[in-house]
Amino acid sequence: MKIITGVTRVYGILADPIHHVQTPQRMNEHFAALDHDGVLVPLHAGADTLARVVEGLRGLRNLGGVIVTVPHKTAIVELCDEVTDSARLIGAANVVRREADGRLVGHMLDGEGFVGGLRDAGVDPRGRSAYLAGAGGAANAIAFALVQAGVSRLTIANRTRAKAEDLKQRLARLDPAAVVSVGTPDPSGHDLVVNATSLGLREDDPLPLDTTRLAPGQRVCEIIMQPRVTALLQAAAQRGCAIHHGAPMLAAQIALMARFLGVRGPTAVA
Amino acid sequence: MKIITGVTRVYGILADPIHHVQTPQRMNEHFAALDHDGVLVPLHAGADTLARVVEGLRGLRNLGGVIVTVPHKTAIVELCDEVTDSARLIGAANVVRREADGRLVGHMLDGEGFVGGLRDAGVDPRGRSAYLAGAGGAANAIAFALVQAGVSRLTIANRTRAKAEDLKQRLARLDPAAVVSVGTPDPSGHDLVVNATSLGLREDDPLPLDTTRLAPGQRVCEIIMQPRVTALLQAAAQRGCAIHHGAPMLAAQIALMARFLGVRGPTAVA
Repeated sequence: MKIITGVTRVYGILADPIHHVQTPQRMNEHFAALDHDGVLVPLHAGADTLARVVEGLRGLRNLGGVIVTVPHKTAIVELCDEVTDSARLIGAANVVRREADGRLVGHMLDGEGFVGGLRDAGVDPRGRSAYLAGAGGAANAIAFALVQAGVSRLTIANRTRAKAEDLKQRLARLDPAAVVSVGTPDPSGHDLVVNATSLGLREDDPLPLDTTRLAPGQRVCEIIMQPRVTALLQAAAQRGCAIHHGAPMLAAQIALMARFLGVRGPTAVA
Repeated sequence: MKIITGVTRVYGILADPIHHVQTPQRMNEHFAALDHDGVLVPLHAGADTLARVVEGLRGLRNLGGVIVTVPHKTAIVELCDEVTDSARLIGAANVVRREADGRLVGHMLDGEGFVGGLRDAGVDPRGRSAYLAGAGGAANAIAFALVQAGVSRLTIANRTRAKAEDLKQRLARLDPAAVVSVGTPDPSGHDLVVNATSLGLREDDPLPLDTTRLAPGQRVCEIIMQPRVTALLQAAAQRGCAIHHGAPMLAAQIALMARFLGVRGPTAVA
């Protein structure tokens, strides 16, 4: 990557844990490809310090913005001065731009990124049934994007059932014709099975769903990138399912995020 | 430099303006030489936002610490939880370590760095007379280090005379035998002439002292690194003085700062 100097623009990724994030590698590659003099660094903030960290970042004049990931995607919304319509609807953001006056504008790209990654892998969600584990920030974004992409029906399963019910109701406001139900840990009978929880990030995490109910013909999708093969994907492969790793979602998002952060390639600048 | 990942330790330099800082280049080279997985980025904070920026940095668990430069070296002392004896005596700090529990510990290395840079250039201050322009954070540190290095006498000149008087009194507490006086913009009659103000950083800055009083035999020293040749150094060279650039002070400090920030080379770790 480029040499960092006093004029290099700074970006960060807020996460906890932080060791697994791959955005620094990917975004710094992307900046280099665009010949953008910027650097993205990991910013390890716990839920207990997020508000004051964000308040501090607001005061940094050379900060372009931050990517936001687990567990901060929902909490960040309240800390922004403004969020885009999609972030407000979803109730979560994963990218925050810092305007020149210090105002923070949040946006959510997880859903677009996930569906983009599926399409990049040759899988169009249109007309397929989908099972979604989770109802947090990423799950909300993916649910909205799957409905917008035209899935035939969507089942949402979450440990706290009320959060799944709430998501179902918000989806109904987006598209009253969408077929959405609240499910159980059993993912059987769905073409696409998506883990949008953070379970699998830590080695001792429980599985996000009942893998004994998986069967050939299903495609099991992860949004976790590290480890590359989570316990869920391993179990899915053993049961003869097709699998979809977490990486394509990030790959699809990197360009979208950079654009939202105001980074333009050399041709766009000229 | 190394690829930045989720486990890379993050460091910053707080400054305003920021464009001229050379610490990112030098420290990142130094980290690479030590095989330390760390990255230092520029952090542009104005005096109006310094406190909240520092409060935010305190919440970042993967932050090793920050270098602090103009105009924050004095203000940072009050924002630390603890400062070293030398930083307290000088009333300024230019490096802050973040402990694992979030406590911030400040230290001042400008003086050691400046004298180290002079010695690296083959000039020992011992027994020489010195004229110092400025009484801010860097000037305080350099004054203490020059007295400790054994200058024959020290003259301090500052636009606000009371600050020079105050520095003189604190130096007397450090070393009651030191010969210190408060001077005028006229630097004549001193072996070493040191600019420890930030005048020269901006193109339209006035000169930090009366250059028409410079004469051959004097050595005029800068702590400003960008521009490399300030208006002061240019005038000094024209009047036949020896000149000493700002860079050696930084070079001498980089290793000292890294050590204070807890960075050890691979041999020290083993």
